[in-house]
Amino acid sequence: MNVILIDPDEVAADRTVSLDGRRAQHIRKILRCGVGDTVRIGLTDGPLGHGTIRTQERNRVVLEIVAATPPPAKQPLDLVLALPRPIMLKRILAQATSMGVARIFLINANRVEKSFFNATLLDEAKITEALRLGLEQAVDTRLPALSIHTRFRPFVEDLLPGIAAECPVRLVAHPDTDRLLPHVVPRPLAGRMLLAIGPEGGWVDFEIDKFRDQGLRPFSMGPRILRMDTAVPALLAQLALLGQLAG
Amino acid sequence: MNVILIDPDEVAADRTVSLDGRRAQHIRKILRCGVGDTVRIGLTDGPLGHGTIRTQERNRVVLEIVAATPPPAKQPLDLVLALPRPIMLKRILAQATSMGVARIFLINANRVEKSFFNATLLDEAKITEALRLGLEQAVDTRLPALSIHTRFRPFVEDLLPGIAAECPVRLVAHPDTDRLLPHVVPRPLAGRMLLAIGPEGGWVDFEIDKFRDQGLRPFSMGPRILRMDTAVPALLAQLALLGQLAG
Repeated sequence: MNVILIDPDEVAADRTVSLDGRRAQHIRKILRCGVGDTVRIGLTDGPLGHGTIRTQERNRVVLEIVAATPPPAKQPLDLVLALPRPIMLKRILAQATSMGVARIFLINANRVEKSFFNATLLDEAKITEALRLGLEQAVDTRLPALSIHTRFRPFVEDLLPGIAAECPVRLVAHPDTDRLLPHVVPRPLAGRMLLAIGPEGGWVDFEIDKFRDQGLRPFSMGPRILRMDTAVPALLAQLALLGQLAG
Repeated sequence: MNVILIDPDEVAADRTVSLDGRRAQHIRKILRCGVGDTVRIGLTDGPLGHGTIRTQERNRVVLEIVAATPPPAKQPLDLVLALPRPIMLKRILAQATSMGVARIFLINANRVEKSFFNATLLDEAKITEALRLGLEQAVDTRLPALSIHTRFRPFVEDLLPGIAAECPVRLVAHPDTDRLLPHVVPRPLAGRMLLAIGPEGGWVDFEIDKFRDQGLRPFSMGPRILRMDTAVPALLAQLALLGQLAG
């Protein structure tokens, strides 16, 4: 937790916030702060700043806050992700959020096990928790937009065209091609990106054809098969770097 | 497990291998293979190939193997890593191995908690297990060279000069700089790389000075603080991409 996230409606008129639970415990046990010390805070979907500890009891901390610093810029990237297995999902959502992904679409695909969706849909609170962990890690305040799409075809036929229209750079990771990222990315890289990453086992041909129809270019990450929690940060980092090289 | 790793001394003169435990279970339960089917195998530190199932009982599978395909090339990169907390270490070692890192140096640093080393040194079997998981994931056979260095100064003064001499590209990740990776990496990127990644909280000044003495150039990953299991694959992927751009 590199920033204490506070919801705006938790802030009283005198700019104080009363925290308990995980955040109070973090201030006391990990940061080892006491009355008069300041801690880094952020208002959810708002600015970053700091809070000065006014009172502190065992399980309660009252902060007086000032927040005026804009949060870091988001990566201009929309991530379409075949739903990972539940144990991996939380970690990947936190990773993608910490790396500044703006929008996340969790979608179904032929090789996504149906049981993953049942587990996920029941657990939307855990999804939000994972996104917040990513913000707390990266000192960000703005939750990515996240939506869950239980059917591939309506997503790709009805929603993807609108997303693609906003993203001049459109890519789909797919092992069955010789083309690596540098071969398919326009240079210099500019504009919003759309990146689709498949399930373990990859997309099926029908899915790749559908993505191609929307202008997504398949590329391979090379001969090594990576776990989703390695492949996602790897690809996000590579696209961020290509953006830096252009800048 | 995308490849069944077999140690050469497990192979009989008639090229059969008798497997039990995790590997036999994987063949039966995950791959759902039976007699006559073939599975992808690799000989540790040797070639990749396939094995044909000759007999199969509940907890035992006998394969007849052929192996002649070279494993994927390693990334020309040596990773110096401040020892992560134990819960993170296994995951990061598997990630780095799956991404093809050739050598890993786990070192001490001022902000590494002493307890991490005690936990790690007792657990060398678990370290090897993590490396093998990375190989099994990435369909590789060659274990990275790994060493553990409990004291920072002897490592950096006595060993690092020899490592640095083999690596024309030398980098240290460090938040306290404005320079991003593209500012410090020679372009086109060619030659072996040395990458040092610090503990949570970063390197202290003394450590950065010591790295600078050996020609390691500090760079920042940007304003976002990433967890080690996100930062490591992110940086390895970025350096691999810079190598591809040069090629």
